[in-house]
Amino acid sequence: MIKTLNDLIEQAKKQEKMKLSVAAAQDGEVLAAVVEASEMGIIEPVLVGDEKAIGAIADEKGLDLNGYRIIDEQDLAETARKAVWLVSGGQADFVMKGLIDTSILLKAVLDKEIGLRTESQLSHVMMYEVKGYHKLLYLTDGGMNMYPDVPTKAKIIKNAIAAAKALGNQNVKVACLAAKEKVNPKMPATVDAGELKQMGVEGFFGEGVTVEGPMALDLAISKEAAEIKRYESPVAGDADVLMVPNIEMGNGIGKALSYFASASSAGVIMGASAPVVLVSRADTHENKLNSIALGSVIAANK
Amino acid sequence: MIKTLNDLIEQAKKQEKMKLSVAAAQDGEVLAAVVEASEMGIIEPVLVGDEKAIGAIADEKGLDLNGYRIIDEQDLAETARKAVWLVSGGQADFVMKGLIDTSILLKAVLDKEIGLRTESQLSHVMMYEVKGYHKLLYLTDGGMNMYPDVPTKAKIIKNAIAAAKALGNQNVKVACLAAKEKVNPKMPATVDAGELKQMGVEGFFGEGVTVEGPMALDLAISKEAAEIKRYESPVAGDADVLMVPNIEMGNGIGKALSYFASASSAGVIMGASAPVVLVSRADTHENKLNSIALGSVIAANK
Repeated sequence: MIKTLNDLIEQAKKQEKMKLSVAAAQDGEVLAAVVEASEMGIIEPVLVGDEKAIGAIADEKGLDLNGYRIIDEQDLAETARKAVWLVSGGQADFVMKGLIDTSILLKAVLDKEIGLRTESQLSHVMMYEVKGYHKLLYLTDGGMNMYPDVPTKAKIIKNAIAAAKALGNQNVKVACLAAKEKVNPKMPATVDAGELKQMGVEGFFGEGVTVEGPMALDLAISKEAAEIKRYESPVAGDADVLMVPNIEMGNGIGKALSYFASASSAGVIMGASAPVVLVSRADTHENKLNSIALGSVIAANK
Repeated sequence: MIKTLNDLIEQAKKQEKMKLSVAAAQDGEVLAAVVEASEMGIIEPVLVGDEKAIGAIADEKGLDLNGYRIIDEQDLAETARKAVWLVSGGQADFVMKGLIDTSILLKAVLDKEIGLRTESQLSHVMMYEVKGYHKLLYLTDGGMNMYPDVPTKAKIIKNAIAAAKALGNQNVKVACLAAKEKVNPKMPATVDAGELKQMGVEGFFGEGVTVEGPMALDLAISKEAAEIKRYESPVAGDADVLMVPNIEMGNGIGKALSYFASASSAGVIMGASAPVVLVSRADTHENKLNSIALGSVIAANK
C-alpha cells in the first residue's frame, strides 16, 4: 500500500512504463514536468499540439525532446480529440491537460465515439500528504462536481475507492463529511451522508470498504477528537477518503492543506476508462510530477 | 491592532477588567479556564449554576473560588436566563456557556425581555493564529448559520467586522469565499459573493472595509497564488475575514487549520448586545482561555 507521495513515485518508476498523451503540450510548466517524469522512467510521452511552439519552449527551457513522438495539431478541439483518441485507440494509457481549457479536453474525453466514457461520473480526486497524518488522504470532490446528489456522491465515492485500490489499499475507509455528526433534516449533507453509510452497510461499495458519516473533519482524522466527542467508528481518526458534500468545502479543505499545512499533493480525474491528469498553474513543480505519477500508477492498476 | 493571540491576551490583561457571567459553570474544563482567566486579571467571573456541583469540581481540581460571586440555580433554562439577565441588567459585560445546551443559552440570549437581542443576526466568529500568515484570520460562519442568503451573509460580515474593529483593525479586508473566482450562476456562492462585493463598493459595510469576492481560499491568503492566477485585489493575500458560503466550508477550513496546521484559535458569538463565549469540549485549554480573552476585549471595545 502506497502511504506517501515518495512511495507513489517509486512505484511509478518500478512498474511497467505507461504511455502518456499530452493534450496541447505547448505549456512550459507542463512540458518540464512531463520531460522530468520521462527522464525518471515513469512515463513515455506522446506530445499532441503546436509542434513549433513545443519546440520553442523546449529550446528556451533546455528540454531535450529527442526521441519523443510529437503529433502536430494547432486546432485545440482537434488537439484534445487526438490526445484522447491515442488512449481510446490503445496507443497511450492516460492523458494529461496542457495549454487547453479543461472543458475542451473533457468534451473529447466524454465523446461517445473516440472518448473514454464509462457508466461512471467524472470526478476529481486529490491526494494529500500532510504532516501529522499517518497515510495519504484522498479528498473528493473539490474541483468538478458542485452540489452532487446521493447517486452522484455514490459514484464520486466509487471513483475515489478505485484510486485508493489502484494504489494498493485493500481496506478503504471513507468519511462522508458534514459540519455535524447527527443527521439533521435541515442539513442535506448530514442526510446524504447517512444514506451513503447505509448503502455501504448494504454492500454497495464492495468488499473492504467502510463508509461512515455524517462526521466533521476532526473526527475523520483525529482519534483524540473522536474520543472526546465519543464518536465511535473504525473510520474515526483513520479515514483514507474525505468525501465532501459540496465543492466549496472540498476546495476550502484542499487549499487549507496546501497553503497552511504545507501538504504536498497529486490530483487526477477519475471515472473515465483512463485517468485524466489535470494540474493547476499554481501547483508546485513537485505536485505536477506527483500527479503524473498518480495517473501512471492508476493507469497501470485499474 | 491585535495581530496575535498573545497580543489579545495582553490587551485583555491591560484593559479595564470585564465581568463574565458563566451559565451552568459546573463544567470542569470551563471552570478551570474561567479561574485561570480570573487569576490572570482578565475577568471577574460570576458563576451561575448548581453551587454544590461547582464546589465539588473546584475541590477536585484544586480551584480556589474564594471571593467569587456564585448564584445557585439548578434548573438549566433558569440558569441561562439568570446568566443572561446579569448582562442585560448591567451586572456583567459578557456571558459564557458552561454545561448547558447551546440552544438553551441562545434562547435566553434572544429573549425579548431579559435577553441581548439586537437588529443583528447571531453568528459565530472564529479567529485563528496560523503559522505562515502575517496576522489573525477571522473565519465566519462555521458554526451557526448553515446556508445563509445574501442579507444574512451581510449581517454575518458586519458581525465579523465588529469583532475585527474591536480588536483595533482600522481597515478590515473581507474575502467572500467560493470555489472559483468567476461569478457562475450555477454556483450560488459566487453570485452572492459578487453581490456582497457590490454592497461593499456602495458603502454598506462602512468606512475602512473592503469586501472582495468571489475568491477561493488560496487567493485570499497567498499573494503568490493571486499573482499566478492574475487576480488583483487589495484583499488578495491579505484577508482579515474569510466569509464562507455554507457551514460545511467554514467547518472544514477551521478543522483543517486546527488539526493540520496546528493553529491556535478563539471563538465567540457576535450579533447580540454582548459577546457570547462558547467553547467546544475538544478545544484545548489554551483555546478556551483565548476565547475568554476575545470576548473580554470585544465587550470592552464594542
